[in-house]
Amino acid sequence: MSTDATKQDPTVLSARLQRAADTAARANLDALLISPGSDLEYLIGAGGESFERLSCLVLPAAGHGPGPVLVVPKLEELGYAEVPANELGIEIVTWVDGQDPHGIVADLLRRDGTEPSRVGVADVMPALHTLPLRTALPGVEQVLAGSVLRELRMRKDTAEIEALRKAGAAIDRVHARMGEFLKVGRTEAEVGADITEAIVAEGHLEAAFVIVGSGPNGASPHHALSDRVIERGDVVVVDIGGPIPGGYNSDCTRTYVLGEPAQSDVRETYAVLQAAQRAAVESVRPGVTAASIDAAAREPIAAAGFGEHFVHRTGHGIGLDVHEEPYIMGGNDLLLEPGMAFSVEPGIYQEEHWGARIEDIVVVTDDGVESLNNQSHELVVLPA
Amino acid sequence: MSTDATKQDPTVLSARLQRAADTAARANLDALLISPGSDLEYLIGAGGESFERLSCLVLPAAGHGPGPVLVVPKLEELGYAEVPANELGIEIVTWVDGQDPHGIVADLLRRDGTEPSRVGVADVMPALHTLPLRTALPGVEQVLAGSVLRELRMRKDTAEIEALRKAGAAIDRVHARMGEFLKVGRTEAEVGADITEAIVAEGHLEAAFVIVGSGPNGASPHHALSDRVIERGDVVVVDIGGPIPGGYNSDCTRTYVLGEPAQSDVRETYAVLQAAQRAAVESVRPGVTAASIDAAAREPIAAAGFGEHFVHRTGHGIGLDVHEEPYIMGGNDLLLEPGMAFSVEPGIYQEEHWGARIEDIVVVTDDGVESLNNQSHELVVLPA
Repeated sequence: MSTDATKQDPTVLSARLQRAADTAARANLDALLISPGSDLEYLIGAGGESFERLSCLVLPAAGHGPGPVLVVPKLEELGYAEVPANELGIEIVTWVDGQDPHGIVADLLRRDGTEPSRVGVADVMPALHTLPLRTALPGVEQVLAGSVLRELRMRKDTAEIEALRKAGAAIDRVHARMGEFLKVGRTEAEVGADITEAIVAEGHLEAAFVIVGSGPNGASPHHALSDRVIERGDVVVVDIGGPIPGGYNSDCTRTYVLGEPAQSDVRETYAVLQAAQRAAVESVRPGVTAASIDAAAREPIAAAGFGEHFVHRTGHGIGLDVHEEPYIMGGNDLLLEPGMAFSVEPGIYQEEHWGARIEDIVVVTDDGVESLNNQSHELVVLPA
Repeated sequence: MSTDATKQDPTVLSARLQRAADTAARANLDALLISPGSDLEYLIGAGGESFERLSCLVLPAAGHGPGPVLVVPKLEELGYAEVPANELGIEIVTWVDGQDPHGIVADLLRRDGTEPSRVGVADVMPALHTLPLRTALPGVEQVLAGSVLRELRMRKDTAEIEALRKAGAAIDRVHARMGEFLKVGRTEAEVGADITEAIVAEGHLEAAFVIVGSGPNGASPHHALSDRVIERGDVVVVDIGGPIPGGYNSDCTRTYVLGEPAQSDVRETYAVLQAAQRAAVESVRPGVTAASIDAAAREPIAAAGFGEHFVHRTGHGIGLDVHEEPYIMGGNDLLLEPGMAFSVEPGIYQEEHWGARIEDIVVVTDDGVESLNNQSHELVVLPA
């Protein structure tokens, strides 16, 4: 599916594999076992799709035997045709129905003549494979590979940042067209269908999520779409995004109003939110904690008396997954570094009345921050 | 997402939960732990979507303590609003960030005062939850819940068969329109994009897969779409399907040719395939083995000398998943029963030249078989 040439750059992938092997060794793992998903895509440039039949990258930790092996069902080998296996030194081992793929993985782990004691399995690996791998490797402790790979994935390289920048511009173009879709008398679902189409038309592979929270629905942060008809004076939260070719995601929220707001408190409250979002973005730079960004967003909202109406964390990392490390929340003492990319998305929710949220993806630069979403932060008034 | 009223019928769901609890007890399990996916959808009428945060139906085996409990993140509780929890006797336990959901599940399993010894975990449960559940329940053996649930899910009830019938009619309508999309000079990808749109327009939630294998690409059973331009005389395999509202899937293949076939062996070989597919469908009835259907498809193809060109199993069960039990393949001694639904899809693949496949979904009736796809089985000649 991937068409982003930068992702298949063998130099980039090779460096990632090496860093993953090194990090695994430091975590006292013998190997990483990576089944299809974004971790696999990150490491070899192809995410795979199989579920029933095991596909698994066996990546020995540094110092633990020969190089990486990709175990794939013969029938699905073509799905990995884009992987620059030779350049990466990846051996491909295929298997057919009737063979025991979990036994094949176990044998590969014993190739250097020693019995493994601890392996990392991909966070996404289904029990359908995690359990048979445990049976095939009795006595071997399974831990989550995510704890190793998140160290790599949350520090984006130049090509990844460029991909996120492109995704940000694509979703900005959809927000710029919102007046075409969001109109009084239409249902959220109708508006959502048009937005879905526009997300694809503006350069995404698909719409991963489309939230149109109108009126009271905007006060429910996890509302998606409904048959509610949009009315004059409604405040509407529109939170949308998806992957562009290459797999990197967009995620951007803007808040709209159809004519003059029906509630008298909207403009004043929205101004608080706007100031909070700006303060949070402006506080992003290398060396500060993720928690400090959360606090920067939360303080102005709390000071205005809306603290209890901001009911979620301030943000989440983004990349090949829409939600990944680093999480921008209280208690997260992670120090921000250049290349970390995440959302800054405070919201204020007046339960049963209306809600508002402003969300940009930002990336930490050498000395500050770059915002990858650049549509106006004003409450956008659409004709009613 | 679900809008199929029959699926939320509490009577149907209640019977399923009871059968699952009974079957789990017979399998010597203390409980089933079912995370989001089609098994959860089958049991409670909502499949869930969460990944990071644990959602889990704790279903005690019959005789193992109080009734089922749905553990869900507070933020995602609304996603289960359609579940008729009261009628089903399901207790809902919510948790918030900072709590330990795996510990909550462990405590629920100990509610009857005994330590569990063996639990079934959903086949789809990611390691992100399987591993912490193992830590929270040390000494408890985890086995795959699929081995229990497949016994239920492969025997469809009346509402499920009706849903599959509706899905079959919807994909038949797409095949009936193939002349609008499949034309000389277009790429497979362009044709596929139009088919994707038509799949939705004809009543599906989405296109789950779209295979347009033209010319030599038709000889690769797992080919999807490419930029190959369709030429006059090409034989084209079109294998398409997806879920309708309620989640039940369609899956149907027809083979087309643009004008007169470029190869002289096409019509004769296709006639062999057509006879094989018909023979296999006609052999379906209660009491025969799944393997016998595979054999009925394979024999005429082998007799004509194409045995080695039919490189995959004859079919797969279908329902809330596109691929599920029963698998129609050699060695499967499962005796067919009324209500089992599966594909019958032999193919003949002339590597590097052309390929053909005919696929219908059929359901076992009390005394024979009903086909849920009913477009002509002829090689369909489109204008070139």
